[in-house]
Amino acid sequence: MLKVPEHQVAGHLAIDGKLGPLVDDSGRFYKPLQGDGRGNKELAFYESFSSDTRVPDHIRKYFPVCYGSQLLEASNGSGLLHHLVLQDIVSSHRNPSIMDVKIGSRTWYPEASDNYIQKCLEKDRRTTTVSLGFRIAGLQLYEGKESGYWRPGRKEVQSFTVYNVRSILRRFVSSNSSIGNENSDCSFAPSIYGGSAGILEQLLELKAWFEDQTIYHFHSCSLLILFDKESVSKGSASVPEIKLIDFAHVVEGKGVIDHNFLGGLCSLIKFVSEVLSDSKESSIKDCVESEKPGICTDNGNCQ
Amino acid sequence: MLKVPEHQVAGHLAIDGKLGPLVDDSGRFYKPLQGDGRGNKELAFYESFSSDTRVPDHIRKYFPVCYGSQLLEASNGSGLLHHLVLQDIVSSHRNPSIMDVKIGSRTWYPEASDNYIQKCLEKDRRTTTVSLGFRIAGLQLYEGKESGYWRPGRKEVQSFTVYNVRSILRRFVSSNSSIGNENSDCSFAPSIYGGSAGILEQLLELKAWFEDQTIYHFHSCSLLILFDKESVSKGSASVPEIKLIDFAHVVEGKGVIDHNFLGGLCSLIKFVSEVLSDSKESSIKDCVESEKPGICTDNGNCQ
Repeated sequence: MLKVPEHQVAGHLAIDGKLGPLVDDSGRFYKPLQGDGRGNKELAFYESFSSDTRVPDHIRKYFPVCYGSQLLEASNGSGLLHHLVLQDIVSSHRNPSIMDVKIGSRTWYPEASDNYIQKCLEKDRRTTTVSLGFRIAGLQLYEGKESGYWRPGRKEVQSFTVYNVRSILRRFVSSNSSIGNENSDCSFAPSIYGGSAGILEQLLELKAWFEDQTIYHFHSCSLLILFDKESVSKGSASVPEIKLIDFAHVVEGKGVIDHNFLGGLCSLIKFVSEVLSDSKESSIKDCVESEKPGICTDNGNCQ
Repeated sequence: MLKVPEHQVAGHLAIDGKLGPLVDDSGRFYKPLQGDGRGNKELAFYESFSSDTRVPDHIRKYFPVCYGSQLLEASNGSGLLHHLVLQDIVSSHRNPSIMDVKIGSRTWYPEASDNYIQKCLEKDRRTTTVSLGFRIAGLQLYEGKESGYWRPGRKEVQSFTVYNVRSILRRFVSSNSSIGNENSDCSFAPSIYGGSAGILEQLLELKAWFEDQTIYHFHSCSLLILFDKESVSKGSASVPEIKLIDFAHVVEGKGVIDHNFLGGLCSLIKFVSEVLSDSKESSIKDCVESEKPGICTDNGNCQ
């Protein structure tokens, strides 16, 4: 039984008779191949990538597994359509908080048409793409059983400023996220962004690869950050994840590093590490203010 | 006595009645303040930078010293004009090989006018700026007493392809540079690009700062690489240098890293380190082929 993904935060949704991706119960994600060649390009990327022995194993885990393509009834009722069959990376999370971050200070590439470049450039300048080297393309934030998810609409997301992005990266790892941006406590920052298996370490691992790899240039590609806030607050060992998705505009690197992706990734890393160091500082302050005789641990708790 | 700089490889030259920079014999470089506000912007940058305590000392050495401004007779005969008084970074070198590399995959900035952005974008796409994240804006290569300098003309420089850039970065550190691009031996790579005081280490030091600093965004700024080939071939202790120049388009970082500069810098680093590792490999091969019983030293020589 195919259904509309419950946790899709960006891109076209398979609702109201529109074409969009579907998921099944076995953890697979079916993405319709876009007709203008983009779908075939993405399929070609996955085929090339999965057999490319130059890609190290510790990097491969940041990409969804691809199971080829399959003819399926399209969600818009237009009949049979080729779909890319991918790992449904959200299915292993119960109440996932997800952020879709489109990386790079430009989403266009030199080989594209002038029209396409102008269209992208216009959007890149309107959003934080040019200024930050990345933009948030969508997100959902699990706020608890009562409140459910905070999922800002497309228009709101597209109007995010640098200030908003900074707030959201804090709010994303706060226990009091529903209260509002100003008072975010960032109490989950040490366990989500920090730690040896945290988001920051994963971003740094990816960065090291991008400083070296000259195989692919990832234009208009997104980095998903996802985690279960509930399992974190219960102290369970759920590991926050990052995954790269959307490869319709990947081109050959031809011996040059993907400096556009790398620059944006470094900018995101700086933002994430600032939230993390702020949260550590404030927890040290809390310890001091509470006059506890203990010390602050690495994960920001008082001992 | 002011005179036209002998080793200027890019920008407007003070010849044929044109406005350009001048130098004196005491190691100072006089750059006319451009009338459209750019000159004052550059002066303002130097004033802000020189008093900014957030800039660490080990980074300050990558910038020319600024001695303020001074009214001088302009080189185009138009009368008295304010000039920026800077350290003449070339004066300490005897027969300098110099490369002027404009860093960044865009030379424009969001605050600029649409016209300016379109003009820059067009040039960025035409050169290697977009594809490589940097472009060579000028160079001179000392080839020896007889041949003197190889200094390609402005049009040739502007038409450099990715292939040309790779060749030039090899030729720049070759003892047989006058023979042609294909046979560059890269014999100076270990002593110019490599080593603890070499170009690569300096670029990496600069990179570490750019991963963190959110004070300035350096648009359309150049990185000069300069060294004396003669003193290197004689084994003297002349240290290759890098310096950042041209700050008419620096804007405030406002808490965001300069991902545009950083990405381009990482791309240049990758190119330089490839020349270096190629040169080490080929010298190992030479040692093996010559059947010398020795080993290859770090600077690529057989022992």
